[in-house]
Amino acid sequence: MALKLEKKRQTPAVTTYEGKAKILIPTDRPGVLRMQFKDDATAFNAQKKGQIRGKGEINCTISSYLFQYLQQQGIPTHFLAQVAPAEMEVTALEMFALEVVVRNRAAGSLCRETGLPLGMELEPPLVEFYYKNDALGDPLLTPDRLRLLQLATPDQVQALTRLAEQINTHLRRFFAECGLLLIDFKLEFGRDRAGQIVLADEISPDTCRLWLAGETDPTKRVVDKDRFRYDLGEVESAYRLVLERVLQQAPRS
Amino acid sequence: MALKLEKKRQTPAVTTYEGKAKILIPTDRPGVLRMQFKDDATAFNAQKKGQIRGKGEINCTISSYLFQYLQQQGIPTHFLAQVAPAEMEVTALEMFALEVVVRNRAAGSLCRETGLPLGMELEPPLVEFYYKNDALGDPLLTPDRLRLLQLATPDQVQALTRLAEQINTHLRRFFAECGLLLIDFKLEFGRDRAGQIVLADEISPDTCRLWLAGETDPTKRVVDKDRFRYDLGEVESAYRLVLERVLQQAPRS
Repeated sequence: MALKLEKKRQTPAVTTYEGKAKILIPTDRPGVLRMQFKDDATAFNAQKKGQIRGKGEINCTISSYLFQYLQQQGIPTHFLAQVAPAEMEVTALEMFALEVVVRNRAAGSLCRETGLPLGMELEPPLVEFYYKNDALGDPLLTPDRLRLLQLATPDQVQALTRLAEQINTHLRRFFAECGLLLIDFKLEFGRDRAGQIVLADEISPDTCRLWLAGETDPTKRVVDKDRFRYDLGEVESAYRLVLERVLQQAPRS
Repeated sequence: MALKLEKKRQTPAVTTYEGKAKILIPTDRPGVLRMQFKDDATAFNAQKKGQIRGKGEINCTISSYLFQYLQQQGIPTHFLAQVAPAEMEVTALEMFALEVVVRNRAAGSLCRETGLPLGMELEPPLVEFYYKNDALGDPLLTPDRLRLLQLATPDQVQALTRLAEQINTHLRRFFAECGLLLIDFKLEFGRDRAGQIVLADEISPDTCRLWLAGETDPTKRVVDKDRFRYDLGEVESAYRLVLERVLQQAPRS
């Protein structure tokens, strides 16, 4: 969704923007966008491409439930309503060009780049910032680089970190009640017209690493996009399993 | 010199270790090593390999002068004596598996990973830590990752940062008097038997980016390993120019 992020700074929400997994479409109501979820799947900065049948509907529904759950916990989100199986209405935001990653256990690029063992518990959880920039490959940012790039003020960085930690506490508990371990996840934030920092994007098996609690087989336990990334098979059924468990656990709205 | 770093933790200075640009050889005096500088040149984590004629002697001589200069400014270094054109004696140290990079202007991986323009002044200078690990490609470390990997204690990280900043102040002034801009450079540190943090490795056009002051042509101004990295030609003469300017400027020892 890099286009959305970069262009919206100048012209919020007046044109359609298509990202890798979602499309943002303006509505006739100012400040309200339609967000369409696609079945398209990409990995490794879009070097790997494919489709996961039903993913748009699954991720839209999971995200809708989780956004409502987080709103009930006092976290501001861009979610307004799920208006179709693969479509939600959201508040238009001025996005930060940042991906905020929360890690409860070592996985993915953290393991590749540090040699830390897969699954190692990180206590306290790690909050990391990445530059949302496809051309640069979404690079990891140190606090100094984040400051140099002026992607957020120091106060905003602090607020984003605190929000990410709070969201982690809520999601970790929620997924634990679903029998799922929340390994790590990626968040994106923006600011609304009042300047408030608001959670945006999606929360789904595309953006979260989730493992079946109690399952130790490293290929069986994975129920997230890693099944697609690493060709583990059973991709669609893993996404459906997460959907079913979330729906069972979710509060009635 | 990854082998040196990793193995020396268990068995300091009892065997010969060959790195990409230098060889460390034990002597019959405990705690003293001979460091031989090679003409071999590598770049991009040894994906590019070659030779620069005379580099071993040039880098050994430049490093010897700069280590002595820094020692006169109160910076502890591993340098004992230059005992041959391409060989110095150094104190054996327990090395940190870290590369400490000081950046006065944006260049190299910082530009590639952030999009900051080449040559942009960084004030205050940036001090960055990289994990010295060839297998992982010497990745950039955030403060959190540095802490997780336990490559140095928080106090040591603070001490290394302060030392790197002091060394930068001295080297920047020294090179300015040579008519050279110190763009960025890489340092390696170890601890001696008393636990004191000591500057090690080398300081040369292999480890420093240096530009001719006042030269604006981006291919002509470069007098460091970037001439080898980016096939700019005149590699050896650039190294010789730095040597000559350092020798003219260096204090008599």
